[in-house]
Amino acid sequence: MTGRTPTVSLAILNTMAAADFAQHLGNIYEHAPWVATAVAAARPFPTVATLDEALRAAVRHVSPADRLALIRGHPDLAGRAARANALTADSTGEQAGAGLDRLSETEFAAFHRLNDAYRAKFGFPFIICVRRYTKDSILASFEKRLANTQEAELATALEEIDRIAALRLDAVVSGEGRLRLTGRLSTHVLDTHSGRPAAGIAIELRELSASGAHRLVASAVTNAGGRTEAPLIADRPVPIGRYELTFAVGDYFARSGVRVADPPFLGIVPIRFAVAEAEAHYHVPLLITPWSYTTYRGS
Amino acid sequence: MTGRTPTVSLAILNTMAAADFAQHLGNIYEHAPWVATAVAAARPFPTVATLDEALRAAVRHVSPADRLALIRGHPDLAGRAARANALTADSTGEQAGAGLDRLSETEFAAFHRLNDAYRAKFGFPFIICVRRYTKDSILASFEKRLANTQEAELATALEEIDRIAALRLDAVVSGEGRLRLTGRLSTHVLDTHSGRPAAGIAIELRELSASGAHRLVASAVTNAGGRTEAPLIADRPVPIGRYELTFAVGDYFARSGVRVADPPFLGIVPIRFAVAEAEAHYHVPLLITPWSYTTYRGS
Amino acid sequence: MTGRTPTVSLAILNTMAAADFAQHLGNIYEHAPWVATAVAAARPFPTVATLDEALRAAVRHVSPADRLALIRGHPDLAGRAARANALTADSTGEQAGAGLDRLSETEFAAFHRLNDAYRAKFGFPFIICVRRYTKDSILASFEKRLANTQEAELATALEEIDRIAALRLDAVVSGEGRLRLTGRLSTHVLDTHSGRPAAGIAIELRELSASGAHRLVASAVTNAGGRTEAPLIADRPVPIGRYELTFAVGDYFARSGVRVADPPFLGIVPIRFAVAEAEAHYHVPLLITPWSYTTYRGS
Amino acid sequence: MTGRTPTVSLAILNTMAAADFAQHLGNIYEHAPWVATAVAAARPFPTVATLDEALRAAVRHVSPADRLALIRGHPDLAGRAARANALTADSTGEQAGAGLDRLSETEFAAFHRLNDAYRAKFGFPFIICVRRYTKDSILASFEKRLANTQEAELATALEEIDRIAALRLDAVVSGEGRLRLTGRLSTHVLDTHSGRPAAGIAIELRELSASGAHRLVASAVTNAGGRTEAPLIADRPVPIGRYELTFAVGDYFARSGVRVADPPFLGIVPIRFAVAEAEAHYHVPLLITPWSYTTYRGS
Repeated sequence: MTGRTPTVSLAILNTMAAADFAQHLGNIYEHAPWVATAVAAARPFPTVATLDEALRAAVRHVSPADRLALIRGHPDLAGRAARANALTADSTGEQAGAGLDRLSETEFAAFHRLNDAYRAKFGFPFIICVRRYTKDSILASFEKRLANTQEAELATALEEIDRIAALRLDAVVSGEGRLRLTGRLSTHVLDTHSGRPAAGIAIELRELSASGAHRLVASAVTNAGGRTEAPLIADRPVPIGRYELTFAVGDYFARSGVRVADPPFLGIVPIRFAVAEAEAHYHVPLLITPWSYTTYRGS
Repeated sequence: MTGRTPTVSLAILNTMAAADFAQHLGNIYEHAPWVATAVAAARPFPTVATLDEALRAAVRHVSPADRLALIRGHPDLAGRAARANALTADSTGEQAGAGLDRLSETEFAAFHRLNDAYRAKFGFPFIICVRRYTKDSILASFEKRLANTQEAELATALEEIDRIAALRLDAVVSGEGRLRLTGRLSTHVLDTHSGRPAAGIAIELRELSASGAHRLVASAVTNAGGRTEAPLIADRPVPIGRYELTFAVGDYFARSGVRVADPPFLGIVPIRFAVAEAEAHYHVPLLITPWSYTTYRGS
Repeated sequence: MTGRTPTVSLAILNTMAAADFAQHLGNIYEHAPWVATAVAAARPFPTVATLDEALRAAVRHVSPADRLALIRGHPDLAGRAARANALTADSTGEQAGAGLDRLSETEFAAFHRLNDAYRAKFGFPFIICVRRYTKDSILASFEKRLANTQEAELATALEEIDRIAALRLDAVVSGEGRLRLTGRLSTHVLDTHSGRPAAGIAIELRELSASGAHRLVASAVTNAGGRTEAPLIADRPVPIGRYELTFAVGDYFARSGVRVADPPFLGIVPIRFAVAEAEAHYHVPLLITPWSYTTYRGS
Repeated sequence: MTGRTPTVSLAILNTMAAADFAQHLGNIYEHAPWVATAVAAARPFPTVATLDEALRAAVRHVSPADRLALIRGHPDLAGRAARANALTADSTGEQAGAGLDRLSETEFAAFHRLNDAYRAKFGFPFIICVRRYTKDSILASFEKRLANTQEAELATALEEIDRIAALRLDAVVSGEGRLRLTGRLSTHVLDTHSGRPAAGIAIELRELSASGAHRLVASAVTNAGGRTEAPLIADRPVPIGRYELTFAVGDYFARSGVRVADPPFLGIVPIRFAVAEAEAHYHVPLLITPWSYTTYRGS
């Protein structure tokens, strides 16, 4: 996925030549331009969502052997092709987004082992919509799915392919009825010592990793309303995984002139939480005094 | 300091030969048995506290030159003498308690630099009652006190010597009116999802270090009342410094059969706080549901 | 029940003449001294609890007709006998404790109606251990039990008689293995604005009534630890029912010199809650700032 | 004040004949059409706010005697004129809005006494912008202002007249730069037991009175987002005074199928708070489980 601005409108897609249509959407399904070709004659599509449904139906309509070929057309995650820069542009961007292009040797070895074990058991590569996961939750899912049956993994692979396609479609096509497979992660800091929003609090969001190498995802400073100017994550799925938000509460009260202990009881307040639904809104507010705090999943 | 059980009672100290008295208390002031000798004639002392006062007064009564000699009799912190096992037993135990016997090369270099700078400026070693500090807060205090005047540091050195002496006295002498220079760190977990104490929650307490090498100080599991069987720290000063408490909340709710997300919104809940008063009671409770929590400095 | 101090010890009961024993315990079961007489020969009892068990067993051992007579020996609640001062001293005290001696005409009429309906349906008076209920929860229970079957109410009447007997026994007999059928209601106020217990907060506890005529049960002022000197209710069951605690928080912060709004955002903080288990410990703490508060069932 | 929809636009006011202009705004200052007449020649006004400023300036520009006459032209609060329906339509509406048309005899007597005392001391009626107060806070302000000096009360009377005028102007004139002297009172209920907004919670807002006769101001039920469809108070000042919000939390959890005690620990949760700034936003959220809750002044 190369950017956020859709490159073509549904209206134009609906009226262009079939060959052009197929070319515009040729990468929605990895190495399978035939999926787009198959639905060209069904135009016009009233919404992006109906176009998406038609593409899914086309995949379900072909023979099991053709579907298996589609599945097999996907690259390994963090595999040799990725290292050799032999992925499609979309796959490269998606894998990089989850940090799969910056693995330690240990992590690379883990992926290598899992890829081989998975292929050996199922005869096709492990497919997961990486934009919906963190590096850690991909590994966790990988280990878990390795225990599934062939039938279950075939079904799961197709569901994941549909999710990948839907996100690519949303990235490419503008117009009515967009899918917007997006979640949101936001916060809000209330100063219950003074009864007002806490302005000027430095916030950092990190993706947690079992390896201890936490990755900074976003940083922001609260505005006069105690909120960040933009959500910490928006307009994309919130990757399933574990996170830590930190709030520089000690600095805030020091600036406010509140008499606190030395060192202050609360300095950096960390909140650790997990995201389980990539398309949900996670609002994680903080109510704070120099001596107490409350956090919760808000709305 | 070699143990928790006092080795002699005040009653016996009050009646033994003056030479024996001086020998029992000869190490209360580092390399200065003359302090104990000076007060032997003032016996009997009705309480350990009055004995402590008499010792302090004896130090204040001698000439400035003698007091400076007392100060100069103290070893460097984490210095060459410590490396060469040339400290008194008390000093060895005290420095080890704060982790000064397990410094990284970087930390050792920092102490070395500070010791030299301090001696160069003031003409005597940096003295601090290490049982009241963590490795990190000793370093922070060291840097801060280096900026003081000669007069202020002379006064501070004597105060710290008095604190060291009082803790040694408490460790050695049993009897009426003990000083008990102790603080306490405790916690309590309430499950506000079910309206009862949270039993079986695994808790860990770590001393935080600027270097990132956090040291496990205590671990416990909550009992039926949501408390730990014993306070996490008790019967000694709570070292001034920064701490992290972690609570295995996700495991608790999983065992309770509560329906939560996968992964659960809250897994390990960390609470970071600082201790500013080594002799105070820090009660840091947690009110918890699978989706929210509250903590505060309690009592 | 005429007082809190037991009037005889188990040791003495175990050794006195059988007739004296029966006289001492003659009122434990209402108008049924035969229950005590029946167990006199089984002495000595090692604990008050085993004495209580023996009394219960004696009631279960007689014929259904005798048990029905025991049940029928109880007075109506707030009935004509009460108005005519024709109750046993125990019953008078128990009914007064729940406020049944101070009914409005409307309430008296409600009890009258329910007493008549209950007797008409079941052939015996409504029996409830009034020391475990408030006036309102007695009425609620009365309405609810009126819908039960004869069999269920016979069983319930005996259970309530056992509870009445146990509380009377606890009031009369001292010694090992006392039943102590007591609950507790306590509170604790933490000032999370200043990070310390809130001292000097005026607290009132009221029993709530559907009629709106709330009854003051206890009042207290928090001490330096943020607690009341004694629990608000202790050494007796906490009557099942609804309550309101009020905390004079506005006055507290005004005295503390905290800058607040005029009028302050929080003045009197009310907490309404219900007690469902008369023998449980209800700890209802308050965490407070001038702009926020938290309460919960604690422990 | 007769309604919410402004009856004339600023654009039209700017271009109509001077006499028409004066007639439209003749009631903005009570019994003082000369104020509007005085500013007619200064038209056009770019915003409602500049028109408001011009009116205020006109009042400040006349002689002290004329200003005193303006003040004296105001009616007593809840006075004889009100009882005799001899007020202007605006005054009638304003006084009714604060409940001054439904006083008990005791309250009427209190106003009577205060009106007389105030007139006797200052020589003019007590003036307060009643739309910014509750009945109780009017009485409290009345008592307090009675202690002021003549000079202070003259100044305060003019400020209050300006506020009355500004609210009337906002009610009458539409267009650019409206004053919008409005506050807001809103709430939000989060169910931290289930980690989602609490839908279907019945909420009531009452204005509290020292007399105990609380007045229902608004009622609502939370929607799927845990909020009320509209703020409880909006598009007008939030009257300075004391309030109680109640939340039917017990019913909510009963419907949710959560296992709770019988009766539930929390049934109706009351939150009492005071409004000190009539033009502010008061957001009073509730975080709730069956066993705990938190409230705070939010934003």
